[in-house]
Amino acid sequence: MERQEAWQQPVSRRAFLAGTGGFLAGAALGSRLLGAVGLAAPAQPDVPAWPWTYVPLDPEVVRRKGYDGFMEGGCCYGVAWAILSELQEKVGHPFTGVPADMFRYGAGGAAGWGTLCGALNGAAAMINLVTPQSDCTPLVNELFGWYCDTALPTEKSNGFGPANVPSVAGSPLCHISLSRWAEAEGTKVTERKQRCAKLTGDVAARAVELLNAWHAGQFVPAYVPAESVGECMTCHGPDGLADTHGKMDCVQCHEPH
Amino acid sequence: MERQEAWQQPVSRRAFLAGTGGFLAGAALGSRLLGAVGLAAPAQPDVPAWPWTYVPLDPEVVRRKGYDGFMEGGCCYGVAWAILSELQEKVGHPFTGVPADMFRYGAGGAAGWGTLCGALNGAAAMINLVTPQSDCTPLVNELFGWYCDTALPTEKSNGFGPANVPSVAGSPLCHISLSRWAEAEGTKVTERKQRCAKLTGDVAARAVELLNAWHAGQFVPAYVPAESVGECMTCHGPDGLADTHGKMDCVQCHEPH
Repeated sequence: MERQEAWQQPVSRRAFLAGTGGFLAGAALGSRLLGAVGLAAPAQPDVPAWPWTYVPLDPEVVRRKGYDGFMEGGCCYGVAWAILSELQEKVGHPFTGVPADMFRYGAGGAAGWGTLCGALNGAAAMINLVTPQSDCTPLVNELFGWYCDTALPTEKSNGFGPANVPSVAGSPLCHISLSRWAEAEGTKVTERKQRCAKLTGDVAARAVELLNAWHAGQFVPAYVPAESVGECMTCHGPDGLADTHGKMDCVQCHEPH
Repeated sequence: MERQEAWQQPVSRRAFLAGTGGFLAGAALGSRLLGAVGLAAPAQPDVPAWPWTYVPLDPEVVRRKGYDGFMEGGCCYGVAWAILSELQEKVGHPFTGVPADMFRYGAGGAAGWGTLCGALNGAAAMINLVTPQSDCTPLVNELFGWYCDTALPTEKSNGFGPANVPSVAGSPLCHISLSRWAEAEGTKVTERKQRCAKLTGDVAARAVELLNAWHAGQFVPAYVPAESVGECMTCHGPDGLADTHGKMDCVQCHEPH
């Protein structure tokens, strides 16, 4: 799962202009001229073509920012802001045109519905902002798989506030992740603020570690679906009944049969 | 749940400048001057403060675009592109600075994991881009509740391609939504392309209907949680054991007891 070669990447308007000679640059270039060379005016004149160029970030800076960002706007905003604000600082435009605030909705599994953990949701959007789809999917698989299998919060984030008992979610769903943690800590889910802020930092840092490795051409996908998924999908998957879809651990909701 | 009054809205840099007299505008205004009036240079110089100003859109245009967008980049991208591209066309900047492509990850319940339906995920992000949190949450509740209870695809989208058997998901999760539809239609989930493209159009249109009503000051929240949520949360909710969190129908995964 290597990075795309330059020729596979979409060509941004900016790069195209740079490649066609300086005389085309600047104010003289209007949509009339673009039309003359066979191009329509781009729908998004403000920004280069997606995916945008990533620069390596410091996972520990992002971990702390994720924690702080949670306190400001929840888990999904926390991760999005941690990564975006670093890219805004280090790169500037076009990242400065995207408001992390649009990810506040993701908190508590999307407006409190308990679906996809907002930290994962925000992280996946940030990964996708800077990676083509062929690389984004394995990176997201890796992040989600790590989240399911890792005791969170990590030691690194647990020092940001009063210590929490780490727990293994076994699921990317907020609903399950929260209940498992509350059970492990022997507390109520309403006491989740510190735990979820730290988890937000951990997810942001892990996403950046993965993106850094990918950027360096060193990302090696290691994600393997939960055992039940492999087993159940032998019959229920695309080559069998094809009556369901997903990568979540089947036996968390279904009885084995 | 009315729209925020003007004084409750965050003040954008642009609006602030407009309100403080023309002599402050233009090139003469540097960060030194901002500092002199007690403001730091904004972290996002490219854009006005969030939330951005919404303009009413045509739900039927967006419905068709959602269908077409799905074919291009999946359900989450489909909704995000349908709404964003309309705002880019009608308003332009700052919407032109946000690439809908960053939402491709949401397909199939986030990289195929079967969690939150990508159409809902993309719609919630678009709602949040133009609404403050206090208004976003009830709008998202309304959209998710409608999605759970409505037979989809609707008659309006079903004409976009070969007819599908409409089904009621009862859940915002892709995993459940897809299985229920495949069962209703008597087909495999791998045959979902037409059904999910139409559903993408329907979700985009519904989000725009809700946003239009909100923009006109006529949004009246009618969402009521699934019966089981109300019942089970009497004991398991924040005022009881508080051992879980969410608004998904409990009895889809748990046996009543």
